[in-house]
Amino acid sequence: MRSQELLWKIPYGTKDLLPQAAAGKRAIEEKLAAMFRRWGYDEVITPTMEFLDTFTKGDTEKREAGLYKFFDRSNQILALRSDMTTPIARVAASRLKDAPTPLKLCYVENVFRYEQAQAGRQCEFYQAGVELLGIPDAAADAEVIAIAVESLRQVGLTNFRISLGQVEFVNGIMEASGLTDGEIERVKSAMVRQDLVGLDAILDATSITDDMKNLIRQIPLLHGGEEILNEVYQKVKNAKSRAALTNLAEIYRLLACYGVEKEIHFDLGIIRDFDYYTGMVFEGYAPGLGFPICGGGRYDQMLKSFGTDCPATGFSVGIERIMLSLERQGLARDLRQKDVYIGWQHGKMPEAIKEANKLRTEGLCVELGMTPQSKEQAEQCQKDKGYMRLVYIEG
Amino acid sequence: MRSQELLWKIPYGTKDLLPQAAAGKRAIEEKLAAMFRRWGYDEVITPTMEFLDTFTKGDTEKREAGLYKFFDRSNQILALRSDMTTPIARVAASRLKDAPTPLKLCYVENVFRYEQAQAGRQCEFYQAGVELLGIPDAAADAEVIAIAVESLRQVGLTNFRISLGQVEFVNGIMEASGLTDGEIERVKSAMVRQDLVGLDAILDATSITDDMKNLIRQIPLLHGGEEILNEVYQKVKNAKSRAALTNLAEIYRLLACYGVEKEIHFDLGIIRDFDYYTGMVFEGYAPGLGFPICGGGRYDQMLKSFGTDCPATGFSVGIERIMLSLERQGLARDLRQKDVYIGWQHGKMPEAIKEANKLRTEGLCVELGMTPQSKEQAEQCQKDKGYMRLVYIEG
Repeated sequence: MRSQELLWKIPYGTKDLLPQAAAGKRAIEEKLAAMFRRWGYDEVITPTMEFLDTFTKGDTEKREAGLYKFFDRSNQILALRSDMTTPIARVAASRLKDAPTPLKLCYVENVFRYEQAQAGRQCEFYQAGVELLGIPDAAADAEVIAIAVESLRQVGLTNFRISLGQVEFVNGIMEASGLTDGEIERVKSAMVRQDLVGLDAILDATSITDDMKNLIRQIPLLHGGEEILNEVYQKVKNAKSRAALTNLAEIYRLLACYGVEKEIHFDLGIIRDFDYYTGMVFEGYAPGLGFPICGGGRYDQMLKSFGTDCPATGFSVGIERIMLSLERQGLARDLRQKDVYIGWQHGKMPEAIKEANKLRTEGLCVELGMTPQSKEQAEQCQKDKGYMRLVYIEG
Repeated sequence: MRSQELLWKIPYGTKDLLPQAAAGKRAIEEKLAAMFRRWGYDEVITPTMEFLDTFTKGDTEKREAGLYKFFDRSNQILALRSDMTTPIARVAASRLKDAPTPLKLCYVENVFRYEQAQAGRQCEFYQAGVELLGIPDAAADAEVIAIAVESLRQVGLTNFRISLGQVEFVNGIMEASGLTDGEIERVKSAMVRQDLVGLDAILDATSITDDMKNLIRQIPLLHGGEEILNEVYQKVKNAKSRAALTNLAEIYRLLACYGVEKEIHFDLGIIRDFDYYTGMVFEGYAPGLGFPICGGGRYDQMLKSFGTDCPATGFSVGIERIMLSLERQGLARDLRQKDVYIGWQHGKMPEAIKEANKLRTEGLCVELGMTPQSKEQAEQCQKDKGYMRLVYIEG
């Protein structure tokens, strides 16, 4: 026997968005799509499912673990997309490979990751983002970060911060450190988890110099304003880390031209949990959210795996995280426009329809009653449904 | 060894929408969402996947055959949604069961059906539609049909027709015919397939009267203007079919108030291929498309299976079918706004960024060049990328 509750159940980590939330989502997505368009980005739409290979190719087992996988009728393994960067890289490398460069592409889509669900972290979630393909320079990174800041401003967030780092900064130190490949992987994993105690333990067990251990221990603490780039430059001697710092300084100089430098905070310990990043990486934080609201970075190697050598940079923002942040900052509004409820006396539906037609032509949002009502009933309906105004048609 | 073509492949029946198509889809969806809002409909968003039970409950094997199914981590069977009417019925019966009635809900979503793919019939496709829950009367059916017509007008289609029928008309004849249940199923299946030769053969093999055989053979030919309702009323004697004709006449009278009666064509042989319909059914056709562009009907029994007894009616329109129809009628346009391309001489990127900021604030769509260019190079870029105007920043 099935109970009603079972009939009403939905899969783990998914959600129904009821009218108020759905209206909020649509308003945010329309704003972002319009903004990306103003910045010259073209939207692309890719299938919800891809061949598993498209996502796992050259990648770690870690990636596959979070995928929703299933077989198609020819026994090939499909997966629901777990990000949009990979499908857009596929499209750029194939159907758009002869389009004029650089490619500036954007998307507004849902993606799927089988993970432990919590506030702001559902298994199906909604993202918007841009990918800028074909440019290896700081100019492209700066544009992407500027769009991220502008996105958060456009949707009405007033209080947020972009943490900016560079994966080559950490890589340079690792290579110069004398750590083995296995040790480097463990160290990075502790950094991604922000597990400083674990990091200490891993380092203690290695045979590298104490100076180097101290430098690595400091990495997660290396954050601050522009001045930190120079300070750290004096401390690290390897060329790769220094080039990363120079790159960040160059990006920052351009961000100042965009007028978004006040939102930037350097955080040289940032390593994002996708291993495809090869240059600058960033995350956007808003107060009261324990996870980034947006994030991105440079990924110059990914298109190679689709047969095209092409540098790339991009970012994505979580739609539900924006909504959660607006809510927690007291900025959420019910965005449903509800202008007029039309009630009508028995026999007056034809006149009521004509009135509804007229008001809608004027751009008003009008609900037409579906059964004859007394004026009192119609007033009650107007209030219950949240309409600003009642029009009552009587004989 | 994998070839590039394999890396670029996407699953059977899916598509990448490149910039021009994606912009067309977004424009159509935004228009429809805004229009549904003007008619007082609230959007809801449901998960892409549901428990298999949600879709198959009380339903035929036929339905399950077209579903994309897979297991979640607790070995429950999930399915990608194959329509939006079922999930919205689930939401209405559960989380919205105490909301003020009637419920007027709408959606703009992708759905999935594993079928033979062809133009206008992909395995993943995009739909928009409305569901009106809580009203058993013709008033609700008329509103839904009026919204369907208005939807096609809003997206720019000028040449289309709504074929309107009533499943109880056919059911009344079947019940009065003397056919067995098995025969009725075969007859209806031939009607859905519009297989008149097959219909003949099935009828010939039965033992019902010749008059009845002739009446049933005529059903697919019973189409025309309003006058046909009276003509047919004289021919059929059973109460159920006659009530269906009276219902259609009542709906038509209201459609005339909405000003959409000229688009209506009665087709009493319409049986849509979802077996949940219980009253009026309709399909919208545009010239040159071999399949309906939109369709819907009344489904008074579905909410019962979610534990709530509630009449309902609704429709959906296929976004790609609209796009195909606009194309074939020569009405498709590239909707990407491309105002200004900004090129700049070496060293002038800061000034170029400031100019881009300024023009975007004015609402223009502006692409900023990412590398220094000569004026000639910038002009070429502006043309290749389809921008209306070049702004070139030099010393």
